[in-house]
Amino acid sequence: MEKKTVVIALGGNALGKDIEEQKEAVAKTARVIVDLAEQGMNLVVTHGNGPQVGMIQNAMDNLISEYQNYKQIPLPTCVAMSQGYIGIDLQNAIKYELYSRGIDGKVSTILSQVEVDAADPAFEHPTKPIGRFITREEAERNEANGVRCMEDAGRGYRVVVASPMPKRIRELLTIRTLIDAGHIVITCGGGGIPVVDRGGHLVGVNAVIDKDNASSLLADKLGADYLIILTAVEKVAINFGKENQEWLSDLTVEQAQEYIAQGQFAKGSMLPKVEAAVRFAQSAPGRRALITLLDKAADGIAGRTGTVIHA
Amino acid sequence: MEKKTVVIALGGNALGKDIEEQKEAVAKTARVIVDLAEQGMNLVVTHGNGPQVGMIQNAMDNLISEYQNYKQIPLPTCVAMSQGYIGIDLQNAIKYELYSRGIDGKVSTILSQVEVDAADPAFEHPTKPIGRFITREEAERNEANGVRCMEDAGRGYRVVVASPMPKRIRELLTIRTLIDAGHIVITCGGGGIPVVDRGGHLVGVNAVIDKDNASSLLADKLGADYLIILTAVEKVAINFGKENQEWLSDLTVEQAQEYIAQGQFAKGSMLPKVEAAVRFAQSAPGRRALITLLDKAADGIAGRTGTVIHA
Repeated sequence: MEKKTVVIALGGNALGKDIEEQKEAVAKTARVIVDLAEQGMNLVVTHGNGPQVGMIQNAMDNLISEYQNYKQIPLPTCVAMSQGYIGIDLQNAIKYELYSRGIDGKVSTILSQVEVDAADPAFEHPTKPIGRFITREEAERNEANGVRCMEDAGRGYRVVVASPMPKRIRELLTIRTLIDAGHIVITCGGGGIPVVDRGGHLVGVNAVIDKDNASSLLADKLGADYLIILTAVEKVAINFGKENQEWLSDLTVEQAQEYIAQGQFAKGSMLPKVEAAVRFAQSAPGRRALITLLDKAADGIAGRTGTVIHA
Repeated sequence: MEKKTVVIALGGNALGKDIEEQKEAVAKTARVIVDLAEQGMNLVVTHGNGPQVGMIQNAMDNLISEYQNYKQIPLPTCVAMSQGYIGIDLQNAIKYELYSRGIDGKVSTILSQVEVDAADPAFEHPTKPIGRFITREEAERNEANGVRCMEDAGRGYRVVVASPMPKRIRELLTIRTLIDAGHIVITCGGGGIPVVDRGGHLVGVNAVIDKDNASSLLADKLGADYLIILTAVEKVAINFGKENQEWLSDLTVEQAQEYIAQGQFAKGSMLPKVEAAVRFAQSAPGRRALITLLDKAADGIAGRTGTVIHA
């Protein structure tokens, strides 16, 4: 039987808010990933980078304001840096987990670009918060400098950037080559470095691509069997937080679309995850998307928990 | 005839001191690399990161001193970030140059770790300057915090870190897999992320590996035919800057070693390049190392210029 291919999307928040928390988080993540590897699956690991890319951008912006001889580092370059910052710890944690179980496994991290449409309407309406919380004064200063900010759920202000839809995974062939050679591949970090194709020249754009959307597209184009979107709850719910709340175990694409139409899922939280899952599940027969907790991933694949969305 | 494999080592200084200079530098570099690709060679591109990793480390250190809730970002993580910062521009420039010549070539950048020996004596004597020039006062403050600094050729002070010898290219199999699949591979950026192997766990160390040394080891282990070390002069000279200065076109390993013993090459400048070239040239029969200018690389491979070192 051919090996199943699974794309696993990790949340950026789950990776911790600093390098020490990250090292703990990746060790935990690695155990789950290697559990799946031991079941004989091809694995591709993607991850968010919200807190991390925000931290990197803050650091680079501060440097520029202090030393005038440096030029502003654009956000897509910060995304590339975040792929290094996160990828290397994730890679080493997975490698060590393989090693400690006596498995001579290969793990690679590649810089990954995801193409978006320069005319994507998202560029007109930045909505994706990145980085730390800032004060109202800082937000006003940013806005005066053309950097969009938004109040975030009463917890303060944050810089917001556009989150356009991914159109093409530019490193798809590289990822496939490495999977075929038996690698666990870490890719599309932070949803991928956002680029537009200007006459054959890939040019970075000021945006952050939703990592679940990028992962859904990647899973589709790789011909994956499963897309696993890891999140902070074991299952998706309808009537969330109400008396008649109901956890969902199994959803057809049509049922999921019906719940989306009812406004059952929170914008900027569960909604994009369910939408990304639906897009993958409907992209070809037999494909299944799973939304669950990190440590329930193997149980979810076995059909014992999580929310599965399928055609 | 089997394709020749060439490892090309670019200097970090040649990549420019900020992101705008970098984009110009990589465009120029890409033309040279694609000239070689058009001759039907397998190409692996490595690069330095002295100015870039210094800038990144400064930025991260400043952030930490401003926002106490972040933890110090270790130097190896900054090296990983610099691989993203430089690699993505280099990759896109090469890809665009291929595209503009009508070649459907593949280019990949992988995060790369290079293992060093925890007992390497270099850790006792940090010598490699990184980052911008700082004042004497900043240097004294750094020293008080355990960060080693040195006066650099009368131009000010700089932070210095250990530069241990590379022992093992950890991503060698990945690089080979991608070469075999027809990729131009960008790897070992900044000499590679320096790591030690602690019982199967790769742990970053506070060091910067000389990119020419890493490239020499990489070229050896890949079974490359050529190692090209790009520098600021067309040829290596003896009696440099003196009346009897003599440019060298062709050197045997023995002649090079004789000149090294005579102290003909400047420490921290030409000496490590010649040493790295010698190590590759003597690693197996038929291997040739070339030291020359970026835009003389193709002429050098054709035997028309540069300094060639061979067994």
